[in-house]
Amino acid sequence: MSASLLEQLIDALRVLPGVGGKSAQRMAYQLLERDRDGGRRLSAALAQAMEHVGHCAQCRDFTEGPLCAICASASRDRHQLCAVETPADRLAIEQATGYRGLYFVLQGRLSPLDGIGPRELGLERLSARLAEGEVSELIIATNPTVEGEATAHYLAQLARQAKVRPMRLAHGVPLGGELEYVDRGTLSHAFGSRSEMG
Amino acid sequence: MSASLLEQLIDALRVLPGVGGKSAQRMAYQLLERDRDGGRRLSAALAQAMEHVGHCAQCRDFTEGPLCAICASASRDRHQLCAVETPADRLAIEQATGYRGLYFVLQGRLSPLDGIGPRELGLERLSARLAEGEVSELIIATNPTVEGEATAHYLAQLARQAKVRPMRLAHGVPLGGELEYVDRGTLSHAFGSRSEMG
Repeated sequence: MSASLLEQLIDALRVLPGVGGKSAQRMAYQLLERDRDGGRRLSAALAQAMEHVGHCAQCRDFTEGPLCAICASASRDRHQLCAVETPADRLAIEQATGYRGLYFVLQGRLSPLDGIGPRELGLERLSARLAEGEVSELIIATNPTVEGEATAHYLAQLARQAKVRPMRLAHGVPLGGELEYVDRGTLSHAFGSRSEMG
Repeated sequence: MSASLLEQLIDALRVLPGVGGKSAQRMAYQLLERDRDGGRRLSAALAQAMEHVGHCAQCRDFTEGPLCAICASASRDRHQLCAVETPADRLAIEQATGYRGLYFVLQGRLSPLDGIGPRELGLERLSARLAEGEVSELIIATNPTVEGEATAHYLAQLARQAKVRPMRLAHGVPLGGELEYVDRGTLSHAFGSRSEMG
């Protein structure tokens, strides 16, 4: 006997991060019993997003067009570039600070053991962008973890080669944490008192 | 500017129980960056389940056919009927005990303040079934909560009217808890030492 549609749904829900068998079961029952319209909306939104959301040609953030809204905006300062690990980090900075420059989303951090090197983070594209001469300041906002710091030093080197000032977020961001979860006040303070890398 | 596909996806994910804005964001980024195939599978499974999963005509459990697998099975004991609140409770009993009878899934519990009465729980169908005379024992496995106990007493009355013995799970199930989360050993013990309702 093949798996029923219900079993297939419970199994499929487990692709979501943090969702195990029990949660997946609750989710499936809840949608079936109380919110079929919500389930249909979710199905359609997933299908659309999986097919049509790609990466911005300039900053590598998620977008459905060729350029993301920030890169396409005429009102952003093109002399500042902020490198972040993930779209969630970009969103956190965007919501917490008054930053008006552009971003570069690494979609990860240097991690040789996991096979993530400069190529996987699109760093040749970043180098080319820095070499164009428009950017004068690279704000490196990778997470203050071991791998994030290593990535920061690598990015600082790239910046110096292109005669761009490498900047790092100020102390205030708790060490060992994840940028995405820092409260707005702390993040805003750290963003404001960024300093040149030694 | 209308919401982007990504924003629509994050918003749609919040229909899932226990998923707030932050979790929905993590889920969307994770699927887009690491598991688009999983996202597509989830979309398809959701669409299929929301359209084609209905209720078993006999026990009200979820099923894609007219009858669920248990009601359609020829090897189950048709003299025993076990009433549970939810499909998850039925699954817990099925996995923990050696019960070979049939089930009746209330899909809820009596809760007049929420507008859930006998009609919403399909109790006229249960009464008709008990009146047919095939069932000799109604095992009432509603949760040991205030509303679950009230529902149990109502079901016991229905059973007595139809000259069916109303049975209740034995002590051992912790009071105030949810059946779905009881460990298998406790649930199996309680199921084995069920007693007639006084």
